[in-house]
Amino acid sequence: MRSLLLSLLVFISTNIFAQSDEEVLRDFYTHALEEQQSYRWLGELCAIGPRLAGSEGATEAVKWAMKTMESMNFDTVYLQPVEVPHWVRGEEEARFGRFPLSVTALGGSISTPEGGITAQVVEVSDFSMLDSLGELGLLEGKIVFYNYPMKQHYIKTFHAYSDAVKYRWMGAAKASEYGAVASLIRSLSTRIDDFPHTGTMTYRDVKTKIPGGALSTMAAEWLSVQLKRQPDKKMLLRLESEDKGRTTSYNVIADLYGSTYPEQIMVLGGHLDSWDLAEGAHDDGAGCVHSMGAAQLIMDSDVALKRTLRVVLYMNEEFGLDGARTYAQMTHDQRHVLAIESDAGGYIPRGFSFDTDSITLEKIRRFQPLFLPYGLFEFTNQGSGADVGQIQDANAILGGLRPESQRYFDVHHAATDVYAAVNARELEIGTASIAAIVYLMDFYDTFKPQD
Amino acid sequence: MRSLLLSLLVFISTNIFAQSDEEVLRDFYTHALEEQQSYRWLGELCAIGPRLAGSEGATEAVKWAMKTMESMNFDTVYLQPVEVPHWVRGEEEARFGRFPLSVTALGGSISTPEGGITAQVVEVSDFSMLDSLGELGLLEGKIVFYNYPMKQHYIKTFHAYSDAVKYRWMGAAKASEYGAVASLIRSLSTRIDDFPHTGTMTYRDVKTKIPGGALSTMAAEWLSVQLKRQPDKKMLLRLESEDKGRTTSYNVIADLYGSTYPEQIMVLGGHLDSWDLAEGAHDDGAGCVHSMGAAQLIMDSDVALKRTLRVVLYMNEEFGLDGARTYAQMTHDQRHVLAIESDAGGYIPRGFSFDTDSITLEKIRRFQPLFLPYGLFEFTNQGSGADVGQIQDANAILGGLRPESQRYFDVHHAATDVYAAVNARELEIGTASIAAIVYLMDFYDTFKPQD
Repeated sequence: MRSLLLSLLVFISTNIFAQSDEEVLRDFYTHALEEQQSYRWLGELCAIGPRLAGSEGATEAVKWAMKTMESMNFDTVYLQPVEVPHWVRGEEEARFGRFPLSVTALGGSISTPEGGITAQVVEVSDFSMLDSLGELGLLEGKIVFYNYPMKQHYIKTFHAYSDAVKYRWMGAAKASEYGAVASLIRSLSTRIDDFPHTGTMTYRDVKTKIPGGALSTMAAEWLSVQLKRQPDKKMLLRLESEDKGRTTSYNVIADLYGSTYPEQIMVLGGHLDSWDLAEGAHDDGAGCVHSMGAAQLIMDSDVALKRTLRVVLYMNEEFGLDGARTYAQMTHDQRHVLAIESDAGGYIPRGFSFDTDSITLEKIRRFQPLFLPYGLFEFTNQGSGADVGQIQDANAILGGLRPESQRYFDVHHAATDVYAAVNARELEIGTASIAAIVYLMDFYDTFKPQD
Repeated sequence: MRSLLLSLLVFISTNIFAQSDEEVLRDFYTHALEEQQSYRWLGELCAIGPRLAGSEGATEAVKWAMKTMESMNFDTVYLQPVEVPHWVRGEEEARFGRFPLSVTALGGSISTPEGGITAQVVEVSDFSMLDSLGELGLLEGKIVFYNYPMKQHYIKTFHAYSDAVKYRWMGAAKASEYGAVASLIRSLSTRIDDFPHTGTMTYRDVKTKIPGGALSTMAAEWLSVQLKRQPDKKMLLRLESEDKGRTTSYNVIADLYGSTYPEQIMVLGGHLDSWDLAEGAHDDGAGCVHSMGAAQLIMDSDVALKRTLRVVLYMNEEFGLDGARTYAQMTHDQRHVLAIESDAGGYIPRGFSFDTDSITLEKIRRFQPLFLPYGLFEFTNQGSGADVGQIQDANAILGGLRPESQRYFDVHHAATDVYAAVNARELEIGTASIAAIVYLMDFYDTFKPQD
């Protein structure tokens, strides 16, 4: 009898809550789609231009974020100083005979010498071929060209990126071990076009640093054909850049205090810096305005969160995660229960992924039916994000918004990552989805047991 | 004991089939994404230009489709004559004072008189306001401007379209009843930009036909502000067009005979015609190459369909469904078991919708787990499509591919519906999804009981 009563009570209260949750979510999505506040903010942020850490654009973006979040109803908005690198791209050129190829330097590449490098190009399909040719001494004095395409068969393009990114990250370092004078990769793009894509590279502990660049996928295809016909022809490669040392920038942080457990923190985060080739509309302007917009939706609703909602706009995700590391150090004595990152673009969301135990994930999955009308169906155990991943609090659930990934690597780190590539409705559905998951997890205390 | 044995058998066979189905599907998706055959065909089709029924472009498209399908391994490829209207757009212009506004004629609109119409503009928010003003005689001699926006809060933009399309379809006819001299709508677009969107309109049995046009959403917003300041100012509206009567065009049809039940037909369809403002890449080039590509994937696989697979590229969906009606008449004595239409764009698919009974839908839904890895999760009872909807066979299951709809009305019937707006991967995932559902339904005989 008692268990029947309990079941009934649970049934009734669940139903009451379920109805109410549906209404809360409908309000979030309706409000987001009608107001388009995230999209309008993204327009302002993109108008600043590129925001590479250390650049004037990044400084402007910090000011814009501070001013904008101060105009919202947060309890506090503050800056957290972060030491960041300041690397500056110069002139760039690649010519195969008289034909120009679209090229760009990878982030952190040293400059080619005055007048550039003129050398034969050796195409390799992968590291194994590099090793074979290198051990025969065939790469000495050559420009190594890694023509490794992102694999099309992965349904989620991030898997193709994970598979191919090692050539960008280590290609120059490994080629230099065999005496190569420069390294070029085929841009990490799932599309054939003429825009080169940049991104970080490492020199690790190499003896001789050589410049590293990326050709557009179209230039890579063209060069590959030409090299079969004219393997001895030389390429002129000029990738100018300057390492200006380190400078100070900022994470921009805003707190909305919780009503019941203000000491428990729920982070919404994106990174404010972008690459220098474009406005970084998807990467990661979208994540910044997703986070700000979700906070705004909650402020504009009748929802009173029990825990503190914190928006963190990280500085320098792209070039060393400095902001995330600084944030983690500075807040190591604070109690984080949740951190949701958006750093996979402003495309239509398919769900969320979490770095957490399976019991917690099962609890979160119970919310899935509430999200189905909005097209979010995946609640997976596939990781969170680079920035929130730095949070060391074992009690924190780390998560990430998972937008549709088909178009992401069309624009990622390239000149095509501009405001016009973002669809207002897709972006806003992401904003509302973040507000919704935070509301549900806070309301139903869907967290790990605290100490 | 017997039931246990049966259960075991079902369990074993289900598992064997499940494994095999997963492999078949993986091959379809991998092949589609790596080959990108649909995307390459779409490039060829779009290179022809606009394909409005009756136009030279439509004729070229018929030739292209015939030639391309003849080069595939179909058992037969043939043309089906269709009588279609031939309406031709002329020069178009709208000026409010000295300011030009982006405008286009709706399909089937009569031409404005020589020199255009110059008249005051009266903005109405909906038909109810039209009636109020009309009954007061305030629309006599005026240009009626329906400024009814597509509602942003619908998650599926097709719902917003259904809600708003009546102003395009009946706006001119209803305004003419109150003595208006022309009718303009706000373009049916979920986006604010400067491209007008066309589409069909009807004169029903009105006494006086008046021209009907569409302003871009940006022009509509601007005009609305101006009309509040200068309600008496006149607009010059010139929408030239010519009705050239009717002409003959064709459905293009290709059959791949079934191995066991060749008399049972499974249709894959899209429409070959487009509006005249652009290449119709999403509407409905995508549906044509989805259908052709799905057939190609099946031909290239080890799958031997039991039933006949028929690709139907319909002529003139946009301007009267002539091709679909002709097809239905000409094949009324054939046995259709399935018809899947793709006419909602080449965006990433979210699932399929069906016009069928709930028992059949439940059977189809059992395939859903096989589609989840590819992001298709919705198998709903929400209709099929305009063309396959004409099929009168009560035993046929009618269905439609349901791509993500957020961006569809950005480009629908406007100059922005071009090849560059289609993402190869999103398109190809649609192609593979159609091949997959046809394979599964055929293999498992997931049809209505036949007489």
